[in-house]
Amino acid sequence: MSEDNLSAVLHGVDDLRLEQVPIPKPGPKQVLVRVHTVGICGSDVHFWTRGAIGPFIVKEPMILGHETSGVVSEIGSEVQHLKVGDRIAMEPGLSCKLCEHCKTGRYNLCPESRFFATPPINGALSRYVVHDDDFCFKLPDNLSFEDGALIEPLSVAIHACRRGNVRMGHRVLVLGAGPIGILNLLTAKSIGAGKVVITDLDDGRLSLAKKLGADATINVKGKSLEAVRAEIISALSGQQPHVCVECTGAQPSIETAITTTKSGGVIVLVGLGADRVEIPIIESATREVDIRGTFRYANCYPTAIELLSSGKLDLSGLTRAHYKLEDTLEAFKRNQKADVIKVFIQC
Amino acid sequence: MSEDNLSAVLHGVDDLRLEQVPIPKPGPKQVLVRVHTVGICGSDVHFWTRGAIGPFIVKEPMILGHETSGVVSEIGSEVQHLKVGDRIAMEPGLSCKLCEHCKTGRYNLCPESRFFATPPINGALSRYVVHDDDFCFKLPDNLSFEDGALIEPLSVAIHACRRGNVRMGHRVLVLGAGPIGILNLLTAKSIGAGKVVITDLDDGRLSLAKKLGADATINVKGKSLEAVRAEIISALSGQQPHVCVECTGAQPSIETAITTTKSGGVIVLVGLGADRVEIPIIESATREVDIRGTFRYANCYPTAIELLSSGKLDLSGLTRAHYKLEDTLEAFKRNQKADVIKVFIQC
Amino acid sequence: MSEDNLSAVLHGVDDLRLEQVPIPKPGPKQVLVRVHTVGICGSDVHFWTRGAIGPFIVKEPMILGHETSGVVSEIGSEVQHLKVGDRIAMEPGLSCKLCEHCKTGRYNLCPESRFFATPPINGALSRYVVHDDDFCFKLPDNLSFEDGALIEPLSVAIHACRRGNVRMGHRVLVLGAGPIGILNLLTAKSIGAGKVVITDLDDGRLSLAKKLGADATINVKGKSLEAVRAEIISALSGQQPHVCVECTGAQPSIETAITTTKSGGVIVLVGLGADRVEIPIIESATREVDIRGTFRYANCYPTAIELLSSGKLDLSGLTRAHYKLEDTLEAFKRNQKADVIKVFIQC
Amino acid sequence: MSEDNLSAVLHGVDDLRLEQVPIPKPGPKQVLVRVHTVGICGSDVHFWTRGAIGPFIVKEPMILGHETSGVVSEIGSEVQHLKVGDRIAMEPGLSCKLCEHCKTGRYNLCPESRFFATPPINGALSRYVVHDDDFCFKLPDNLSFEDGALIEPLSVAIHACRRGNVRMGHRVLVLGAGPIGILNLLTAKSIGAGKVVITDLDDGRLSLAKKLGADATINVKGKSLEAVRAEIISALSGQQPHVCVECTGAQPSIETAITTTKSGGVIVLVGLGADRVEIPIIESATREVDIRGTFRYANCYPTAIELLSSGKLDLSGLTRAHYKLEDTLEAFKRNQKADVIKVFIQC
Repeated sequence: MSEDNLSAVLHGVDDLRLEQVPIPKPGPKQVLVRVHTVGICGSDVHFWTRGAIGPFIVKEPMILGHETSGVVSEIGSEVQHLKVGDRIAMEPGLSCKLCEHCKTGRYNLCPESRFFATPPINGALSRYVVHDDDFCFKLPDNLSFEDGALIEPLSVAIHACRRGNVRMGHRVLVLGAGPIGILNLLTAKSIGAGKVVITDLDDGRLSLAKKLGADATINVKGKSLEAVRAEIISALSGQQPHVCVECTGAQPSIETAITTTKSGGVIVLVGLGADRVEIPIIESATREVDIRGTFRYANCYPTAIELLSSGKLDLSGLTRAHYKLEDTLEAFKRNQKADVIKVFIQC
Repeated sequence: MSEDNLSAVLHGVDDLRLEQVPIPKPGPKQVLVRVHTVGICGSDVHFWTRGAIGPFIVKEPMILGHETSGVVSEIGSEVQHLKVGDRIAMEPGLSCKLCEHCKTGRYNLCPESRFFATPPINGALSRYVVHDDDFCFKLPDNLSFEDGALIEPLSVAIHACRRGNVRMGHRVLVLGAGPIGILNLLTAKSIGAGKVVITDLDDGRLSLAKKLGADATINVKGKSLEAVRAEIISALSGQQPHVCVECTGAQPSIETAITTTKSGGVIVLVGLGADRVEIPIIESATREVDIRGTFRYANCYPTAIELLSSGKLDLSGLTRAHYKLEDTLEAFKRNQKADVIKVFIQC
Repeated sequence: MSEDNLSAVLHGVDDLRLEQVPIPKPGPKQVLVRVHTVGICGSDVHFWTRGAIGPFIVKEPMILGHETSGVVSEIGSEVQHLKVGDRIAMEPGLSCKLCEHCKTGRYNLCPESRFFATPPINGALSRYVVHDDDFCFKLPDNLSFEDGALIEPLSVAIHACRRGNVRMGHRVLVLGAGPIGILNLLTAKSIGAGKVVITDLDDGRLSLAKKLGADATINVKGKSLEAVRAEIISALSGQQPHVCVECTGAQPSIETAITTTKSGGVIVLVGLGADRVEIPIIESATREVDIRGTFRYANCYPTAIELLSSGKLDLSGLTRAHYKLEDTLEAFKRNQKADVIKVFIQC
Repeated sequence: MSEDNLSAVLHGVDDLRLEQVPIPKPGPKQVLVRVHTVGICGSDVHFWTRGAIGPFIVKEPMILGHETSGVVSEIGSEVQHLKVGDRIAMEPGLSCKLCEHCKTGRYNLCPESRFFATPPINGALSRYVVHDDDFCFKLPDNLSFEDGALIEPLSVAIHACRRGNVRMGHRVLVLGAGPIGILNLLTAKSIGAGKVVITDLDDGRLSLAKKLGADATINVKGKSLEAVRAEIISALSGQQPHVCVECTGAQPSIETAITTTKSGGVIVLVGLGADRVEIPIIESATREVDIRGTFRYANCYPTAIELLSSGKLDLSGLTRAHYKLEDTLEAFKRNQKADVIKVFIQC
């Protein structure tokens, strides 16, 4: 095996270096993975430009990257369901398996969770990385390595649609047409939502959303809440959405969601903005509009693989850019331009 | 208005007559409907050939037909959401609105239910029929009258998929490829099921199912349960279905469902056969495979309309035959041939 | 029958008059009820002192009162399940039975709801009142008329515990020890909650809560959120509550609920305060603490009757005061003192 | 530490021997437990008298016993939440933590489950036993070691009531008044069920059930299904049960459950009898009476502890007999007499 384990290590704000790190050895229930493709996520860029996300602060050098696919290169002594050469997608968050959350199926809430590229845990922007075998999922032949890397953000959308209880025939409003908003649009449509309306401030994103299946797109720039609300309901033939998936974190968008959702419906919070937000609470309370948050995802990788491999959900329309691991810095800069939905790094 | 109200009246076994009946007057919250299209259902034929279904016995002359679309021809004094000329689909079962089932959203279980063409309630194979306005649903412009009539059997499938909790990425087994099995296949696929396998005894039906999207079809004729089970699991890449929708009512099919469903999964009973059936109960109990029945449907018409009008679910592939009301007897005979999925009568 | 139908009619702010009104006639599916006991609710007092609650403004004279029990005095021509002389509790909100909310079992969200003593609908502080028969519930022999009147606020608590999904063994925090907080405490305990902690600003209320079964009481007066949070968790042996039932509507209390509930838990909003409130939204979103509102209740009267008549829930510990209809004004003044949980008026 | 590890080892049918076995060493995440109390379960006796239960066959000598409490005697290097001297209850089934069932919170369905005294896994009728620390639960001070041992069968009842979705105010029918039936009665009552009716063939058991809170008891001996059904409904004031918990496994009892449960209700299968059973399937299907099995339990120990320590559920009324480990054979014989609900062995 090559001794090369070039990795993208963040040393501090604006200080991302390509360095060699030792190739790790897999434990008994782990596999060593030859990383193939890593997608860049907004959180990677945030750590690079700010050095922290909320309580997670980069204090020691940390490898970035958590949207990852690769090939099994070595297996631990007790690994059974994987073999060398298997193409896999890697679910980035390991949980303790012992706490109440883990035992009841909500392991994303595990307080002991160890997640790629969340300080102090290293990520996967490396030639090689070690991972627990039960968080590695075989890719069917008809899925590419880029599909494999996209399963991570797709899982965020799947989890959001589950939390929002998006069911067949539902009218859905997605607020924000960035990568996560777009993936929520695709997920909602693939699971039988009726009409899906999507909002954003950027016409380019909205036009992509339209191409990818949005039934209506609304540019909310400079519009009053009342005007936006009226446009949404008009786009839904006079009816209110059953579910709103909020992917911006912005207060006006959250308020739009609360006032627009039909009574008895659900708002899912996916985008994160300010710590504290003022909401029209009587409006949500007396109309029984539930407000549900999301934190990452649990048990979504198998579902994502099934949706993709069965062709129910098609990611081929996402705009993309590609870089080599050696050009990671260029890739991060490109990601800031937001002219494509996803920037990939080949390792 | 024409005084013609030709109707298909069942007087007894094999005694279906076309007769004039008085045009009814709508009550304050009712509408008079000029019937356009009625689909023939197996139960209509069953009443015609046997005179009864279980406890429902034809004792008085009864008009047949319950899969109906038409045009509003007159409205009662308190009707608000419909007007003359509206194209509508008619949900055939009226409920009491007062009992615990009605108040908790499961009005299909209402013991006072009055359902088209279920003795002693008349059906809709007439030129004109009266119906409660809240059980009439406007058809969007992009739905045809045949779509409108098909919403009834489609609602049976929607209810079955809801009862089975078919969710995104689920592997689904549909047992029986008759009209209801085919509609369950289409519904499951449209709401994000991953692979759907369907079984039947007839190659023609299976080949239609294949054309309509089944990932695998299995002709179970003459095969042992073990062989069928092995074929199903092989078609699902070695995995068991999350949900089985049983549309035959035959004991071997029910047993296949119980033994094939994954632990913790669900069997939905849609097909009705013998009153009493022997099941491998330890198998279902210790693997926590739930057995759930279905009776008609509740709150499915709006969902069906949303799925159809948004294009998520496409009924255009169903094979069909068409008759005039005057040729009802021919239509009933054709339905017995089972060479098409649905026989329609234009009124 | 007596011609006396003395009623407590609100003509405007601070203008509550006892007047004779005509005895109404029941429609075919209605009953005439000889009112026995009416409990005074905070909303009655609010209309009296302010003339409005949110969008509901008293523009015409309106009879107050909605927590009602009585005796059937006359029945309409189509009434079947009730007869003259039956002792009943009256669910005060009639719904349209036709809309999506009514058909799916959430009739409390019906936009056409007609609720006692919510403008412009008259309430039940009368000698006689007419009501739909399916919203009248027979009282078992072992329930008193006061129990019957208390079923209304108890239904608010039952609905809150349902919305919060309070299940066996749950740790529950109730914020606010007024009548609704106390009833939530009693309901939670009666359905298997483990420890229940309750907060308030008033020691008298907390001491009653303690007597009625609270495992811990916390007076939050002048304490910081951190201090309150620490006390709650300490009272729960170091663990966080699964469910918080917020009965105050005050911002600090809502914030306490959000930050104290365990990850994956639920906050139920019952108390109403300011229209707009600032909440720590990242805290609720990333810990997946759901925020669910409540509006009145649906399908709770039969449950309340079952809980009371089976002895699972005991209301005998509630402190009370009693007045005659003629002394309604005194009763309203007494209610403002808040020295008893419930003030009753005998009609 | 003593070298004494006397254990009750089953060598074959009717061949239960008291033998010394080596005291095991705990792994890093395990604890060594000084066993205090073991309850005898019907399955222990079944292995002793028959040598097998279904597919589980005693081929090698196996220690019996799985209802266990004790004291932590030694802890592994990575154990954090327990310390030497802690009094604990032991959940007997360890799961793989890796499969879909484990990750989604239904670890009782894990195919790799290793359960005390289920061949080839040894049980806990020993002086000392080793167990995974996350399946050991600290006993609050107000719970006894017998309570600790009873948490195992109580968890069976809690799981059954959860699977049956027993909610507040529900009418519940428990079929069978053996230990599990009695515990289901106590659980249902403690979580807010309204009336609970219980059936059995034995008047002694029924009279105990009555004493423990059953609202009605019915001896079904020699009675027709129709007669039993009529008695149940009469005991419920003319109404049908929402949930039936079937604890006998006998066909007539299962049939009683199916035909007696209200439409839209649930039957929970707890008792196991014949592999195959004939059921009135049209009756269950068209009335949407769900048939749900149970296999052991998952996530029930913490709930059981909360219910017991908060006093919501009281086990003190269970009749008991006590033996020393040295008298295990006597204890097993006593258990066959079924004159007490639970036989305990002190180790």
